[in-house]
Amino acid sequence: MRFTSETLSDGVRERLFTLGEIPGVLWTPEGAAGTRPLIVMGHGGGQHKKAPGVVVRARRFVTECAFAVAAVDVPGHGDRPKDEEYDRIATEIRARVDAGEDPAPLIAVFQALVARQTVPEWRAVLDAVQDLEYVGAGPVGYWGVSLGCGLGVPFVAAEPRVRAAVLGLGGATASAEAATRVTVPVEFLLQWDDERVPRAQGLALFDAFASAEKTLHANPGRHGEIPAYELDSTLRFFARHLGCTG
Amino acid sequence: MRFTSETLSDGVRERLFTLGEIPGVLWTPEGAAGTRPLIVMGHGGGQHKKAPGVVVRARRFVTECAFAVAAVDVPGHGDRPKDEEYDRIATEIRARVDAGEDPAPLIAVFQALVARQTVPEWRAVLDAVQDLEYVGAGPVGYWGVSLGCGLGVPFVAAEPRVRAAVLGLGGATASAEAATRVTVPVEFLLQWDDERVPRAQGLALFDAFASAEKTLHANPGRHGEIPAYELDSTLRFFARHLGCTG
Repeated sequence: MRFTSETLSDGVRERLFTLGEIPGVLWTPEGAAGTRPLIVMGHGGGQHKKAPGVVVRARRFVTECAFAVAAVDVPGHGDRPKDEEYDRIATEIRARVDAGEDPAPLIAVFQALVARQTVPEWRAVLDAVQDLEYVGAGPVGYWGVSLGCGLGVPFVAAEPRVRAAVLGLGGATASAEAATRVTVPVEFLLQWDDERVPRAQGLALFDAFASAEKTLHANPGRHGEIPAYELDSTLRFFARHLGCTG
Repeated sequence: MRFTSETLSDGVRERLFTLGEIPGVLWTPEGAAGTRPLIVMGHGGGQHKKAPGVVVRARRFVTECAFAVAAVDVPGHGDRPKDEEYDRIATEIRARVDAGEDPAPLIAVFQALVARQTVPEWRAVLDAVQDLEYVGAGPVGYWGVSLGCGLGVPFVAAEPRVRAAVLGLGGATASAEAATRVTVPVEFLLQWDDERVPRAQGLALFDAFASAEKTLHANPGRHGEIPAYELDSTLRFFARHLGCTG
């Protein structure tokens, strides 16, 4: 793990790093020392590790609960080289949407392919970040919607250190099988008028989680319009399951 | 409005009253003076104004947000005389459930019949309670699930003083028509394994509300098993829309 830059602002320390070929970012409270909960965040399709939706949440996790937060670029995104195979499939998904066809089966194939790479990558990042004295081996949470849900469900299913997950904007075709292996508490965000994930697909994915505690939060609006009050709820969900020392 | 008893415990003043033939209860903070938000609560079928699920919520509304809270017995419930017509329909509903038939159409008839009585009753209670100096004409919220949803939806639709409502455990057959006239923010509670309200009925009722802000919270479990953390969410929902001075 190699740190390449560091900035401080409003009580949050941000360190960019690379782990092998994986570019990442770690946010922690200024002056943090000792073990704390860690949130791993997965960004959306076409976004990157410092997309605004990731950063705004990460900063609140740090400032309000003193969590550490890590995010990395998904292959083909952010500071990573383009991947021709991924690009070809992404182009084909857009073509199917434009043609009025159901893109869900191809999205499922795509996300399963990428997850075969991201699950071990994210586990390696978890190992490296938890080795830092000011992060340590505390409880881990996962946050990710849309592509961050499609890649997050197999990650949460595979990684026993994850104790709670906020997921959403994903569908059953892509993720129901892995969801049956998720047993930790889940808060699942569904947009009632999602133009990309049919409502029944989202409801069926919520249904598929094996978790004894799972809660569905559905709100009116399109794919990108999760209301601001859900971030308050996300914070309380992680605070309840991981402990909040902010 | 005639007050018949008063008790004080742990900072909460509880006054029993009758308004005409309606027995009610009013909870306010000990020593309250001046205008404050008021929550009207509707109890479930077979319950009454001081059912445990009502009291535990009312006390938290009072102690954490300094709200006033009023609940009254629905006709045929609590301290009110039995109503032969209501009893006959309730018996028929149980018979249909036992016979494996869909009780939803008869429940809809029953709740519409009772609501013709409770909507004007609750509005009269609102008038009387808001006349008290230590309640006043502040913003009003409504809380009610199950029968409290079936009677609450037409009340919220009819009463412009209500600014926000927590509803749930109800279905579209009984309440969708009135729900199309509800425009205030709604938090809707749905039990994913509700043995009394089919999941599709609950989802269709959430869909029917005309509110620009509405949020569905669905959790695993049966009709009576709303998880405790939803009360925390209810408090924050009312605090956001009515103001919390606790």
